[in-house]
Amino acid sequence: MNNVLDEYKFPIDLKSMSIKQLEFLCAQIRSFLIEAVSKTGGHLASNLGVVELTVALHRVFNMPKDKIVFDVGHQSYVHKILTGRAELFDTLRQEGGLSGFPKTEESEYDSFNTGHSSTSVSAALGLARARDLKGENHKVIALLGDGALTGGLAYEAISDAGNAKNDLIVILNDNEMSVSKNVGGISEYLSKIRTRQSYFKIKSATAAALDKSAFGRALTSVLRKFKNGIKQMLMQQNIFEDLGFTYLGPVDGHDIYKVSEMLERAKNTSGPVIVHVCTKKGHGYMPAETKPQAFHGISRFDAASGNLLKKKLTADYSAIFGRHLVRIARENEKVVAISPAMTLGSGLKSFARNFPKRLFDVGICESHAVTSAAGLAISGFVPAVCIYSSFLQRAYDQIIHDVALQNLHVVFCIDRAGVVGDDGETHQGIFDIAFMNQIPNMAILAPACFYDLECMLKYAFCVHQGPIALRYPRGNEQYTGPRYEFQFGKSNIVKRGNDVTIISVGNLLKAAVNSAERLEKEGISAEVINLGTVKPLDAKTIIESVTKTGAVLTLEDGIVYGGVGEAIGALLEKNGINAITEYRGYDNFVKQAKVSSIHKKYGLDDEGIYNWATSAIKKKRG
Amino acid sequence: MNNVLDEYKFPIDLKSMSIKQLEFLCAQIRSFLIEAVSKTGGHLASNLGVVELTVALHRVFNMPKDKIVFDVGHQSYVHKILTGRAELFDTLRQEGGLSGFPKTEESEYDSFNTGHSSTSVSAALGLARARDLKGENHKVIALLGDGALTGGLAYEAISDAGNAKNDLIVILNDNEMSVSKNVGGISEYLSKIRTRQSYFKIKSATAAALDKSAFGRALTSVLRKFKNGIKQMLMQQNIFEDLGFTYLGPVDGHDIYKVSEMLERAKNTSGPVIVHVCTKKGHGYMPAETKPQAFHGISRFDAASGNLLKKKLTADYSAIFGRHLVRIARENEKVVAISPAMTLGSGLKSFARNFPKRLFDVGICESHAVTSAAGLAISGFVPAVCIYSSFLQRAYDQIIHDVALQNLHVVFCIDRAGVVGDDGETHQGIFDIAFMNQIPNMAILAPACFYDLECMLKYAFCVHQGPIALRYPRGNEQYTGPRYEFQFGKSNIVKRGNDVTIISVGNLLKAAVNSAERLEKEGISAEVINLGTVKPLDAKTIIESVTKTGAVLTLEDGIVYGGVGEAIGALLEKNGINAITEYRGYDNFVKQAKVSSIHKKYGLDDEGIYNWATSAIKKKRG
Repeated sequence: MNNVLDEYKFPIDLKSMSIKQLEFLCAQIRSFLIEAVSKTGGHLASNLGVVELTVALHRVFNMPKDKIVFDVGHQSYVHKILTGRAELFDTLRQEGGLSGFPKTEESEYDSFNTGHSSTSVSAALGLARARDLKGENHKVIALLGDGALTGGLAYEAISDAGNAKNDLIVILNDNEMSVSKNVGGISEYLSKIRTRQSYFKIKSATAAALDKSAFGRALTSVLRKFKNGIKQMLMQQNIFEDLGFTYLGPVDGHDIYKVSEMLERAKNTSGPVIVHVCTKKGHGYMPAETKPQAFHGISRFDAASGNLLKKKLTADYSAIFGRHLVRIARENEKVVAISPAMTLGSGLKSFARNFPKRLFDVGICESHAVTSAAGLAISGFVPAVCIYSSFLQRAYDQIIHDVALQNLHVVFCIDRAGVVGDDGETHQGIFDIAFMNQIPNMAILAPACFYDLECMLKYAFCVHQGPIALRYPRGNEQYTGPRYEFQFGKSNIVKRGNDVTIISVGNLLKAAVNSAERLEKEGISAEVINLGTVKPLDAKTIIESVTKTGAVLTLEDGIVYGGVGEAIGALLEKNGINAITEYRGYDNFVKQAKVSSIHKKYGLDDEGIYNWATSAIKKKRG
Repeated sequence: MNNVLDEYKFPIDLKSMSIKQLEFLCAQIRSFLIEAVSKTGGHLASNLGVVELTVALHRVFNMPKDKIVFDVGHQSYVHKILTGRAELFDTLRQEGGLSGFPKTEESEYDSFNTGHSSTSVSAALGLARARDLKGENHKVIALLGDGALTGGLAYEAISDAGNAKNDLIVILNDNEMSVSKNVGGISEYLSKIRTRQSYFKIKSATAAALDKSAFGRALTSVLRKFKNGIKQMLMQQNIFEDLGFTYLGPVDGHDIYKVSEMLERAKNTSGPVIVHVCTKKGHGYMPAETKPQAFHGISRFDAASGNLLKKKLTADYSAIFGRHLVRIARENEKVVAISPAMTLGSGLKSFARNFPKRLFDVGICESHAVTSAAGLAISGFVPAVCIYSSFLQRAYDQIIHDVALQNLHVVFCIDRAGVVGDDGETHQGIFDIAFMNQIPNMAILAPACFYDLECMLKYAFCVHQGPIALRYPRGNEQYTGPRYEFQFGKSNIVKRGNDVTIISVGNLLKAAVNSAERLEKEGISAEVINLGTVKPLDAKTIIESVTKTGAVLTLEDGIVYGGVGEAIGALLEKNGINAITEYRGYDNFVKQAKVSSIHKKYGLDDEGIYNWATSAIKKKRG
């Protein structure tokens, strides 16, 4: 990559640089980011927003002795550039390449791996407690956005840290955004602090005045006794101070001098400190400033214009979901939608426009999304809880405790189910089948194509009673063969055959059918079963088929432990069906790579399925 | 039961009663509670603390049209008495009897089922949103304790509600306690509010004075421009107001007149309101006031003295765990312990006394407990994360994302694993095997006796690398036969046999061995395998045994879907082992009953195992 930063050796000594030099460096980093991400895709807007802040952090603190935990972590690109990884940016988010998130295995400058929201203060408090137990002496910093601050985990940690009193610096990177515009009381509150820019000055000046000025001496006897009350109030003005933190800010996050100064103050303050830094997502790059949401996570684009190189697909599972949800909601006024700060990504744009009062964006709060949905459901509404698979892990207990235990009719619309590719381990949606499968009362559906999704949505909202989940993948990979009709609890024999059985979940059906066609040509007759209903299992069809063929391969885009493959294996064993059996899925966390490459690696592609069938046939015959 | 409340018909019209009459009623309820709970056991202290508050709620609001959600729910006894369930109290927490928690299936006065902490505001906001969408007109109330307020879910909901502006009343029942003394910044903060009793009066008087008094006119020109700043600060003094709520209180929760008056104010306030009510756990019953923790959840006791009828067992799994953890911690200074407000229940009393700086009580924050443990582990410490099984569900994502993905050496000490009995569905620890089993890098151990627990703890802390879980039950049921040695990854053949294989997890080994002995006498030779290591599975031993016997029964005190039984079934199927197979565990949520009764119902007791074996033998022979 043509590296505008080539003249530097990283990590460079930022401490000796003048403000002018630092500003120049920031401009170079910004150009580099735009150029690099335009070629690979990635998280751009959030990184453009923290250029000065990150440079200031590396200037004021002594990394890696001092440790920083990035919340979510997709805003760690500048940090990666500053710590010797600029030249790896042409491999960003690619198989074997630079991760888009902090990775301890990548650099000693990365203290803790992140990906999900709101973990940084917890992790940093753990690091701080460890430091203090060991009697070491270094700084621990958590950098979190105002979006992450809506998550309950951040609050739990701030409340604990405020009480524990270990030295800990929390940088609140306030850009008024989650992925989209931030919501919630805490967000409203931050905006009030921001609009009182001179807040801190007023506060100290007033306190001083009350103590020392003529004004103090002029207090009437009535007011005199309120003085302590006022002072107390002034001392506890701020929500963070209420929780035991020293509050510093707000400060302009694009003024490197001011930010550095504020960070120096934080460094010299003992106990837990929060530094409120105001930044602008996409700062310094007009296309990203004006469309921060589009430039949050972006695919390849033209750096000059900001236009995407590949036109966005008009239809993917999210879009199809959103379209049909609107239709269903039009016919059934009890249908509402809940999203934890992901309305756009979940395909709810049109729903939001059509039914603004029936859409609840609750902020980055998956747990609350589910429990509040239970409240709506028990009152007769049918909530669509729209959460990406890997983030739904955050609401595991609420699904069990608040929804399933009361057998409430909540529809879990699980987007990004299965591997998602570039974002890597933390974002792969590989656990939902396994964790939903355990839960009594829960039904699970998995569409293999858009038409399936349409039928399943109708069933889930209009027919089913009780909790039900639909899991569909990122993108638009779908089965395109002859149509079959979805029927709850029944699987579809998409292709009949006698030699082997292939049981597929969701969009893997396409590969299963392709392999079966190839096998057919070679005289191997494969029966392909589409498991549209993952739970409850269609035991009859499965048992009949495997009894007939004596060989079965299960395919799921999810973890194999506790997945549907093992459930099928257990079913066959219990029913005394002896067969050559293989369960395919993931047996470990799945690293970043193209989805197709991951499927290939785990034998979930055409070739892998074909190879299994031919070897199964050999075993049967031999 | 000799019912001191016999003279009333419930629900009675509290509205027409005088304060004196209400106070008399409260005294009667208190006597009733003490007498009733002394005979059945149950949650006493928290209910004694809310007698006046609950009476006032039923007086001021119109239940069941107005709806109340009890957080956690074990403080709903007074509510149950007032809504016609007094006569059922002799069946409290017993099989088929009155639940110790709100149950919509029990009464129309129960609006939402609870059990876990911090759900009430979320659920109530769902109810409020439903009401407003339907254009109905009733009040929705959430009653939560200050302990529950430390949970992130409560904060997520308060922040959302403060922004959403639906009418919603949150009653903060502040007794300065979780199960034990409450901790955390938010708790410290509440105590500051409490100590400023006249807080609210000062606030309004000051604001008025600034506007209208001579004082206002005497402001110097410097101070004049700060006036608005001060007013703004005065208007936003409180953390709850910061988040968009109207704050009322604090008020003495045992003064029925004052509480009623405050609730009336809340009723007439639009938008989200929080009423801060100060109560004393155990109020009015000296033994409970002085030992609120002992009287939190208590077994049967002598009402006059407050002494327990049955002496507390000197040793249960929690106690044995605590004892050995202290020994291990003495030898290894890197061992630390983390508890979410359950130090006593988890057996950490002695650890706390011996290593106060190495114990972190983080409040009711299971998610934060796990993520902060990850921070400690990555710094070289070995944290014991001590969480009850059903509450660990709250940290499912953190276990995956923060611990397992980084393969950190965290020891999950899962107490109350398996069914716990009286507390019912919400507290049964039946999911941990299934949800831990899915997670890559995770190992799972289950002791069948105290000696097992000791050996496993030594292994988990001193030998193992990476995440590992120990799951052990409530109580002291243990295998007492000949000793075998725990070896990681190996199961123990506790009794050799040729006719059937019984694979047992944890404390079910006792029943398995008992049955095997009985079977032996009848000429049936059962092989009993103890699965001390649940994950990774000891495939070799299992396959060898089942190949030999041709019949296998798996026993686990947990959900059967995705449990170890199904994993074993899938293993056998894949290895072509044909056998008579049965997986025993729970196939649904498990209602309150004695543990022994539950085990019997699901065939996990001596008799059930015996019956399976005899019928398996018949099948084999027939």
